[in-house]
Amino acid sequence: MARVALDAMGGDFAPRATVAGALLALAELEREHTVQLVGQSAVVQATIDELLAGEMAAHAALRDRLELVEAPDVITMTDKPSVALRGKPQSSMVVGLRLQAEGRSDAFVSAGNTGAQMAASAFVLGRHEGLARPAIGTLFPTARKPVVVLDSGANVDSSAEELVQFARIGTVYAEDMLGRPNPTVGLLSIGEEAEKGNAAVKEAHQLLLASGLNFLGNVEGRDIPVGQCDRGPIDVVVCDGFVGNVLLKFYEALAPTLMGMFAKALGAERAALEEAFRELDYSDHGGAPLLGVKGVSIISHGKSGPRAIKNAIRVALRASESRMSEHVGRRLAEGTASRAATDGAPAA
Amino acid sequence: MARVALDAMGGDFAPRATVAGALLALAELEREHTVQLVGQSAVVQATIDELLAGEMAAHAALRDRLELVEAPDVITMTDKPSVALRGKPQSSMVVGLRLQAEGRSDAFVSAGNTGAQMAASAFVLGRHEGLARPAIGTLFPTARKPVVVLDSGANVDSSAEELVQFARIGTVYAEDMLGRPNPTVGLLSIGEEAEKGNAAVKEAHQLLLASGLNFLGNVEGRDIPVGQCDRGPIDVVVCDGFVGNVLLKFYEALAPTLMGMFAKALGAERAALEEAFRELDYSDHGGAPLLGVKGVSIISHGKSGPRAIKNAIRVALRASESRMSEHVGRRLAEGTASRAATDGAPAA
Repeated sequence: MARVALDAMGGDFAPRATVAGALLALAELEREHTVQLVGQSAVVQATIDELLAGEMAAHAALRDRLELVEAPDVITMTDKPSVALRGKPQSSMVVGLRLQAEGRSDAFVSAGNTGAQMAASAFVLGRHEGLARPAIGTLFPTARKPVVVLDSGANVDSSAEELVQFARIGTVYAEDMLGRPNPTVGLLSIGEEAEKGNAAVKEAHQLLLASGLNFLGNVEGRDIPVGQCDRGPIDVVVCDGFVGNVLLKFYEALAPTLMGMFAKALGAERAALEEAFRELDYSDHGGAPLLGVKGVSIISHGKSGPRAIKNAIRVALRASESRMSEHVGRRLAEGTASRAATDGAPAA
Repeated sequence: MARVALDAMGGDFAPRATVAGALLALAELEREHTVQLVGQSAVVQATIDELLAGEMAAHAALRDRLELVEAPDVITMTDKPSVALRGKPQSSMVVGLRLQAEGRSDAFVSAGNTGAQMAASAFVLGRHEGLARPAIGTLFPTARKPVVVLDSGANVDSSAEELVQFARIGTVYAEDMLGRPNPTVGLLSIGEEAEKGNAAVKEAHQLLLASGLNFLGNVEGRDIPVGQCDRGPIDVVVCDGFVGNVLLKFYEALAPTLMGMFAKALGAERAALEEAFRELDYSDHGGAPLLGVKGVSIISHGKSGPRAIKNAIRVALRASESRMSEHVGRRLAEGTASRAATDGAPAA
C-alpha cells in the first residue's frame, strides 16, 4: 500500500494535466494505492469534477482513491528557490513533502519549479549522511537499454568525491528502479584512457577504481546513444551536473528537430514518425528521482502532460516500494566508512 | 592560387582514402589549386597509380596537380603527442606543417592523430598573441543553419578568459567560413539567466557583456539542435572543450543509432533514411579548423573517407583564401588591447 503525494499545482499544464495524470495512474495501479492531490483544494476539486463529468467519465469510480490536501500557496516557475521556501511555507510543494516527512505519505511527485523542489526536498526530507548534495538521475534511451545519467542538473562544479557519490547512488538507482544486478558504472570523459579528462574527472577515475563499484572506466559521449562501450554494456553514466544538464536538454530537443527533418526527407506520415520518436520523448518519460534525500522526490518535466504525470507516479511508487532511499543511505555510509578507514591509516 | 598540404598517411583509411579524396577535390576545384601529398612517397605513388589505373581512371588528367612531398615517418593513432613530436620530426604531420611555416604551402589537412596535430600545429606554426591555447571549432547541423561549437575538444578546464577568447575566434570563423555578418554568440550554460552555470561560465558571461561581441547571453543544450534561442538565431556556441567534446561525440553517435531505430519502426528503405541522415553524418563533413594557430590546420575525423577528405580540403582552401588566421590574430589583439586598457586604468 502506497500513498503518492502529487503537487497538483506544479507544471505548465496544471492542475488539469496533474489531476488527469493521477486518474490515469490509479486506473493502472492496484486498488491499494492512493494519490494525494496537494494544492488549492477548491481549484483541484473543480478540476476533478470537470474531468469526471466529461472526457474522463469512465474513471468516475476512482474518485475515492484521490485524497485532497489543502495548500494555499503556489510556487511559480520563476520563483527563486530560497525565496519560495521562506516566503511560501504553505505551498503545494512544501506541504506535499512535509506529509512524507511526517509519515503520512510515501512519495512526492512534482512537475513544478525544479530548483524549488530540490531545495525543498533537501530541507524538508533531509539529506543522507556522507552526501554533499543530492543529484538528479535521468534515464537516457539508447539503442540497448536506457542508461542512468547523473547528475543531470542538480549540481555544477562537482568535485571528484561528489562524482564518486553519484556513482554510488546511481548504482542503487539501477538496481532498485531498473532491476539490474551489479550495475556497471562509466565515468563520462573525453577519452577512454584514465589520464583523459578535466581535473575532477581524472581524480574521480582513480577513486572509482578503489570504490568497490562495478567501474567500467571512462566512457565517451558516443557510448551513450549506443548504451555500451568497448568494455561492455553501460548501466550508469556519471558526470558533473553541468555536463549532464547540457546533454539532457540537447537530447530532448533533438528528437522533435530530427523528426521534422526526416518527415520532410521521407515524405512519411508524421504519425508513424511520432510513434517511432515516442521512446525519445522526455515529456512522456515521467520523472527523475532526486537522489540523496531521505525519501522519495520525483522531478517531472514542466511540460508534462497526463501520460507523463501518470508515469512519474509509477516511478514514485517503484522508488517507494523498492526502498531505494534507504539503500542509497546505506551505500553512501559504506563509502564514508571505507574513506574513514583509508584516512585513518598510519601515515608512516 | 592555393597549395593545400594533405597528410597522406593520416587516418584509418589512409593512404587510399586520402589520395582518392585529393583527386575528388582537384576535380571540383579551379585549375590553379594544387594538393601536396605528404608521406612515404613510394607508398603514395603506388596508391595514385593504382587508383588512376582503376576506379578513378577518369581523373588521370589531375595527376600533375598532385605534388609528392617525402616524409619517412608516420605518427600512429596511439602515439602520445609529445613523444610523436620529439621522436618523429620527419613525420608527414610535422613535414606538412613545416611547408606552411616556410611559405611553401597555404594550408594543412590531416585525419591522423588529433592530439599530435594540435601539438604539432601550435609548435610548428606558432600561436597568436593573446591566446592561451588553440581551440577546435566544429559545425553542428541544426534545424536552421549549422552552428559553430567551440571549443569542441582541444581544451579542458577552460577559464572565463579562455571562454571569451573562444567567442572572439568563433566569431571570426562564422564570418570567414560561413559568411555570416556580425555573428551572434551564445554561452552554453544550464539556464538562460546570467547567474546560471558553473564558476567559469558565470564569470565569462560578465566578460562577454563587455566584450563588444554580438553576445546573446546564455544558451542551453536544447537551443543547439534548433539553431536558435528565445533571443534569436545562434551562430556561435562557446563552451569548455570537455563539454563540447562530449556533445560532439554524443551527436555523432546518435545519427546512426536513431537511423537504426527509425528504419525498424517505419520499415522504410534504409537508403532513403541514409540520405536524410547524410546531413548529420560527421564523417562526411570534412574538417574542423584548429583556431588560434598562425596558419591553417584542419582536423578531420579519423574515419574520413574520400568524400570527407575532399570536403576537408575545401574547408582548408576557404580558410586560406578568407585569411581567417590573420583575422583571428587581429581579433585576439583587440581583446588584449581592451583588457590592457582596463587593467591600466588608474586604481583611485
